[in-house]
Amino acid sequence: MDFKEKVAESYRQIQDEICSGLERADGLGKFEEEHWEREGGGGGRTRIIQNGNVIERGGVNFSAVYGKLPEVVMKSFSAEEDDFIATGVSIVIHPINPWVPIIHMNIRYFELNEKLRWFGGGIDVTPHYIVENDAKFFHQYLKNVCDQSSPDFYPEFKAWADRYFYIKHREETRGIGGIFYDRLNPQKTQLTFDEIFKFSEDVGNAFVPIYSELINRNKHKEYTDQQKSWQYLRRGRYVEFNLVYDAGTKFGLETNGRVESILMSLPPTANWQYNFKPELGTEEERTISLLKQGIDWIS
Amino acid sequence: MDFKEKVAESYRQIQDEICSGLERADGLGKFEEEHWEREGGGGGRTRIIQNGNVIERGGVNFSAVYGKLPEVVMKSFSAEEDDFIATGVSIVIHPINPWVPIIHMNIRYFELNEKLRWFGGGIDVTPHYIVENDAKFFHQYLKNVCDQSSPDFYPEFKAWADRYFYIKHREETRGIGGIFYDRLNPQKTQLTFDEIFKFSEDVGNAFVPIYSELINRNKHKEYTDQQKSWQYLRRGRYVEFNLVYDAGTKFGLETNGRVESILMSLPPTANWQYNFKPELGTEEERTISLLKQGIDWIS
Repeated sequence: MDFKEKVAESYRQIQDEICSGLERADGLGKFEEEHWEREGGGGGRTRIIQNGNVIERGGVNFSAVYGKLPEVVMKSFSAEEDDFIATGVSIVIHPINPWVPIIHMNIRYFELNEKLRWFGGGIDVTPHYIVENDAKFFHQYLKNVCDQSSPDFYPEFKAWADRYFYIKHREETRGIGGIFYDRLNPQKTQLTFDEIFKFSEDVGNAFVPIYSELINRNKHKEYTDQQKSWQYLRRGRYVEFNLVYDAGTKFGLETNGRVESILMSLPPTANWQYNFKPELGTEEERTISLLKQGIDWIS
Repeated sequence: MDFKEKVAESYRQIQDEICSGLERADGLGKFEEEHWEREGGGGGRTRIIQNGNVIERGGVNFSAVYGKLPEVVMKSFSAEEDDFIATGVSIVIHPINPWVPIIHMNIRYFELNEKLRWFGGGIDVTPHYIVENDAKFFHQYLKNVCDQSSPDFYPEFKAWADRYFYIKHREETRGIGGIFYDRLNPQKTQLTFDEIFKFSEDVGNAFVPIYSELINRNKHKEYTDQQKSWQYLRRGRYVEFNLVYDAGTKFGLETNGRVESILMSLPPTANWQYNFKPELGTEEERTISLLKQGIDWIS
């Protein structure tokens, strides 16, 4: 088994474990699976969970695709060669209760003409209402995961997430960030490819304990219709980020990925309200005031 | 009054007349207006109508902005100079009743360093359920408007709309198209700038009679909850087009336009359902089967 097969095999297993963990945390919803093949090469298995106790809709996708990169993507990589393989796990969960945050995770491995190779990924959380204690727990957990591989990772990847998950036209972050990393290779990290691979597995394995905790802390909180409406507005912002800025969505659509698997990140329902501004002193206004880059959530 | 001021003055008046016409057609809703200024130069007046008899939410925007083009926009124009002025009227209306279509109109005038000048614009309709007789009325009306200026316009601009209002990743058109044109100047059209200006006014003036007719034909039709859900799914596609492909939205966001005015095109509520496929033989399936480029709606 060569390196890319080893990665794919491990990622498949991570998908399995995450799906089991999410079903346990939800207590009702069950994943449904769809296998698909990509015309240019490869395919994946998409798993969707809907109408659970906690989860309104979520997807946990595994894919391993290969082929020729379209020119527009090559340009964005500044690459001159176009044989690629990409394998990864992608997750987005939209919960029912607005006190439970939206979560996103991705781990991926990429090869270009068997010469350029790298890992990318990250986890980030988008609360409809920011609970500072939860944000602290989340970031501390990520820091512990990162510190096992390198003391540089958390500060670097936390700042990268702040830059990446940013809705420029709204001048707000998508949520409380997390970690984001890309193009990790030995030259960049002083780690071997095996060690970077291990780091990406650690990120994948962090998903279930992190999200189970965030679910358990918040799933029993009561909420009003007005708070549900606010959730729909925040989901509107999530749609804006994913369709206007998200590189993974763009890459997927431009490489003729499976549309339904890529766009499972979009919420079941989203609202837009013209010129909505929450009243001063409300929880909604407080949340918006915290959608800023550079906040240290841990200390 | 120089040419660009004359255009702006006429477009302002067209905005007024369209707002009056839409209030008449709706019978209940009233526009609320907001004046705004753009940091880099110029501004506009945004008018929003909500919760009417017919209209769930709609916007009729006038803007006249000027300044320096951001580099990314210059590149897309293949231009080396960056002083621009842009003035236009933009409309998107989301109706309550799924039998009434979504409509979009835009007329705009653009100058680059006072040397390059052109008109752009168009009208297109996105029915949640395609009614072929309405499509025929709509396209025939547009053809009549176009024919007054040039016999080439309707066939050319109809085909352009089919290409432009296309959701590539879904392999479907946004709706039944209409007309779309850009970069019209005397060289391209054999018309003078005054004549092209007149054409763009004719397009603007066609909006009220067209949409009033489409409203009156459909506003009394009954609909079910299931049909309302279908409308929300179709609005999801509208969001996908506007955020992923629409050049006007991109231009607005990249030139720091007023976000709430640009994104008034997004619907109050949109839904996404994983892997939804309408059953064979239903109205929904028939509509999807007609979301194709190159359909001749008139004959």
